[in-house]
Amino acid sequence: MKKFAIVISGCGVQDGAEIHESVMAMLAVDMAGCFYQLFAPDMLQLRVVNHLTGREVDEKRNVLVESARIARGNIKPLSEYRAADYDALLFPGGFGAALNLSTYGRDGASMKVNSEVERAVKDAYSQKKVIGAMCIAPVVVAKILGKGMLTIGSDRGTAADIENFGAKHQSSGKGEVAIDLENKIFTTPCYMLSSSIKDIFVGATNLVNEMVRAME
Amino acid sequence: MKKFAIVISGCGVQDGAEIHESVMAMLAVDMAGCFYQLFAPDMLQLRVVNHLTGREVDEKRNVLVESARIARGNIKPLSEYRAADYDALLFPGGFGAALNLSTYGRDGASMKVNSEVERAVKDAYSQKKVIGAMCIAPVVVAKILGKGMLTIGSDRGTAADIENFGAKHQSSGKGEVAIDLENKIFTTPCYMLSSSIKDIFVGATNLVNEMVRAME
Repeated sequence: MKKFAIVISGCGVQDGAEIHESVMAMLAVDMAGCFYQLFAPDMLQLRVVNHLTGREVDEKRNVLVESARIARGNIKPLSEYRAADYDALLFPGGFGAALNLSTYGRDGASMKVNSEVERAVKDAYSQKKVIGAMCIAPVVVAKILGKGMLTIGSDRGTAADIENFGAKHQSSGKGEVAIDLENKIFTTPCYMLSSSIKDIFVGATNLVNEMVRAME
Repeated sequence: MKKFAIVISGCGVQDGAEIHESVMAMLAVDMAGCFYQLFAPDMLQLRVVNHLTGREVDEKRNVLVESARIARGNIKPLSEYRAADYDALLFPGGFGAALNLSTYGRDGASMKVNSEVERAVKDAYSQKKVIGAMCIAPVVVAKILGKGMLTIGSDRGTAADIENFGAKHQSSGKGEVAIDLENKIFTTPCYMLSSSIKDIFVGATNLVNEMVRAME
């Protein structure tokens, strides 16, 4: 049975992992007959946002603890991820990828990446594992590897940043997957495009199925 | 286009709405070509649980505000629900149904139900709308209506409470739906049975499809 490590970044699109994308990633892996283990960095969220008002609130929340809500408690700190134990490494999106896993949401092209995330992606890449990323998360992969062909949909500014990091950007539509077989990197835009939840299901399923195919 | 009102109870299985069940309900409604609007009561959660450790923590969180994470901000207070505006009323599960929507998780058979939840179910029932409930949420519907044939899977204690409220319990397996055409009540066990996320998708899809059929 092929094994996915899924790395999430909190619980809620505005300050953590996008919930629909995370759940659809888990569903797609399960439907493909594969195993998944969730991971998240054990760190404070950069911010906490009231998702009803969209306003930042004066609270402290931990990325791993909030991610455990999506995981129903079954989650490990990202520090425990070992690339050799998994066939694939997959990042759902949400602002958490740009606030907690990296600082792209605050610093743009001069972003920094969380050291555990950087290690995870570099280890997976050097061990020729399959890497997947959804929504805004491809930016983090592009920054770390400085190569590959990825998609975040059609946003020109974000695409330009990806190219400045040394990677290539391929425009994509709803549910489409950018396939980089040479680097084994697979990406899909999800909520980077105006979408209904069904589109996220289709995108996650297409992504995971392409990733599984690349393992064979 | 048929319209579902989906009522959730926070964000996380241990103190709010079960996230997978909520997301699968939304997905199933979208895949059936129907519209959904999310609702939640505007009230403090009965408790806040660290989902990594399973322990209660000394925090205050609001049910509507946390539910907005699952809804990506697109959610209304349950007080604004009008049965006449929707074809169906659907309750995903999670302990939030037994802690916030009702007190079943604390008080068992002597439970009380949140007054807005009670009004929503009574209005939907009296206007012959289709009512659906997943996981533990059927207990709340049984308590309010005191009739109907529902399922929470196979837990004997919970089934006995449902019967004591005046309803009937039908045992069910993974993904199965208890169909009460007379009362237009549809229920499925989800995580009340040991399940993988794929089973929740199947259960939610079967449930929503039966509900849609009952509208025709």
